[in-house]
Amino acid sequence: MTSKKKSALSEKEGVVPPPTTNKSAAKKIKLRRRSQPTVDEFVTQICAGNITYLSKAITLIESTNPKHKEKANQIIEACLPFANNSVRIGITGVPGVGKSTFIEALGLALTAQSHKVAVLAVDPSSSVNKGSILGDKTRMEQLVTDPNAFIRPSPSGTSLGGVAQKTRESIILCEAAGYNHIIIETVGVGQSETAVHSMVDFFLLLKLAGAGDELQGIKRGIIEMADAIVINKADGDNEKPAKIAKVAFQRALHLYPPKDNGWTPKVLLASALHFKGIDEILAMINTYMQQAQKDGYFQEKRTSQNSYWLLETIEQQLKASFYNSPNVPEALQNEIENLENGSTTPFNAAKRLLKLQQASKNT
Amino acid sequence: MTSKKKSALSEKEGVVPPPTTNKSAAKKIKLRRRSQPTVDEFVTQICAGNITYLSKAITLIESTNPKHKEKANQIIEACLPFANNSVRIGITGVPGVGKSTFIEALGLALTAQSHKVAVLAVDPSSSVNKGSILGDKTRMEQLVTDPNAFIRPSPSGTSLGGVAQKTRESIILCEAAGYNHIIIETVGVGQSETAVHSMVDFFLLLKLAGAGDELQGIKRGIIEMADAIVINKADGDNEKPAKIAKVAFQRALHLYPPKDNGWTPKVLLASALHFKGIDEILAMINTYMQQAQKDGYFQEKRTSQNSYWLLETIEQQLKASFYNSPNVPEALQNEIENLENGSTTPFNAAKRLLKLQQASKNT
Repeated sequence: MTSKKKSALSEKEGVVPPPTTNKSAAKKIKLRRRSQPTVDEFVTQICAGNITYLSKAITLIESTNPKHKEKANQIIEACLPFANNSVRIGITGVPGVGKSTFIEALGLALTAQSHKVAVLAVDPSSSVNKGSILGDKTRMEQLVTDPNAFIRPSPSGTSLGGVAQKTRESIILCEAAGYNHIIIETVGVGQSETAVHSMVDFFLLLKLAGAGDELQGIKRGIIEMADAIVINKADGDNEKPAKIAKVAFQRALHLYPPKDNGWTPKVLLASALHFKGIDEILAMINTYMQQAQKDGYFQEKRTSQNSYWLLETIEQQLKASFYNSPNVPEALQNEIENLENGSTTPFNAAKRLLKLQQASKNT
Repeated sequence: MTSKKKSALSEKEGVVPPPTTNKSAAKKIKLRRRSQPTVDEFVTQICAGNITYLSKAITLIESTNPKHKEKANQIIEACLPFANNSVRIGITGVPGVGKSTFIEALGLALTAQSHKVAVLAVDPSSSVNKGSILGDKTRMEQLVTDPNAFIRPSPSGTSLGGVAQKTRESIILCEAAGYNHIIIETVGVGQSETAVHSMVDFFLLLKLAGAGDELQGIKRGIIEMADAIVINKADGDNEKPAKIAKVAFQRALHLYPPKDNGWTPKVLLASALHFKGIDEILAMINTYMQQAQKDGYFQEKRTSQNSYWLLETIEQQLKASFYNSPNVPEALQNEIENLENGSTTPFNAAKRLLKLQQASKNT
């Protein structure tokens, strides 16, 4: 390893500094590695609310090293009895809607009520565009210094399934560490809202007041998922359009079938920058949670979410193993060409591809 | 085999008639079976528009006998070069909306224009409730006697994938037999609209005028799929509510994102019983098809539908093979219980189940 002087005085490069590796340093590093905490130590420390251990364990979850993953799995299973006691809130909204400011305001309002808040994210694109939501923690300047808040950027990964799994496992550790409110942010790339929706108790869509045609730009299916729509930046000149937007959204929500649990999605105004409307939003989530706890919908939803992720994981693995089988990618390309020139049917093509995978497994 | 007298005079049962099986009859049956047409004969006759052969070939498609299926596959692939020259129209609507009457009116209007019309159906529930849509051909009294119309009830089957596959294969044979308009009906059980939508060029939703709150009862996702909404039974006292419903639907359609090809879904009124509005509907479909042919969307959509069915079939087969693996059903039940009592995560449960399947394959 080489180090580079950062002093402004050293203008010119050219002199290569001597390598810092020496025997005693290498020994120290090895020792430090060997002294990685055991699963029991991890669990004890996490359950005691030790943020350093929580962060380290999440790093194990995010690692690509199979040994780390195995260890992470053991920690997660051991933490399970201490998890699940939280309100999981999903928040989505396009860039520019003020998600960071809103989450900070929500987080601060929660810690002011003596709650502990963890903020996680699901952003499968972060590894592609190198930008990561929540990566820039300075965006939540106040919350990041709050001892009762824990902020962790989106895990990296190209597949939504992988990113979602890591976030879901992190939720368990955060809950075991005593965070009783988990906020999960997503920018809504691809199907990421669906993924977040299926890991939270309450799903909140953040919007801005627009030019009156609010509904045109919304992705299909998002409205159906929302338990509440919050129109942010409802301050100053924006207050009037925000009120008009509120009516439009309320009318639109009326067009959708009612939710399983009878909850009517609410439309609220907020100005996160001025801490306006935040307490009303928390009160609404509170009302929702009390109702859901009382009528059993809370547990029912979490159970069905677990089943969903079980089946989803199985199906993703089956597909991944099929599409990565030897010869399958080329054969699939050929069959698609056959379909395009009309020389076969999708069903016969599928049959041949499945036979090919079977054959490659048996050799 | 035993036969039973159908005469109204034989009131009492009790006398068992003698078995009809005898050597010469058995020989005849065997001979007839042996004389089943060859693949070449099937293809020649189907392409010549022979309805008997077309029906027989569809029966092979629907057969559960692997030999019949194999023969059907050969016939389908040989017919492919003569297929695809048709307008495929999907029609959905809840029971009572007048689907049969509407399809008959549409079919008769088409044959009056010298077109040949095949009417097929996708109804995965038909094998369960023993009732089958289109099963009662007398509902289309006039169309059924029209020499240019071919009506075939929904294939039976419990899985939508299977039923849809059979219908999709039947489309190819009908097209090869010269039917240039294929109407595919569905009652919309489960995901059957999605299945039909992904095998047709034009998707039509049939509705009735209601009590003003037309949109409440519509299943999620249906509106997005519709290329047109037709409000049926717009006659007599119903004309005024139908016109009001038309405006409501037009307003609702405006809330959805525009279609890939720029087509704005239309809302039309019809009274199939009085043959009112049918020509306008055909003219609209015609306009749509001309535009789609011109800008290449027609071919693009059919190609992407083929790819969709290829991937869909592969995924269904992978899932079926997993869930039917030895020990997997019981183990899955166990893991779901583990999830319910919170002793594992969905991801660890999935890992164990996938290992189990792998192990059972290798033995």
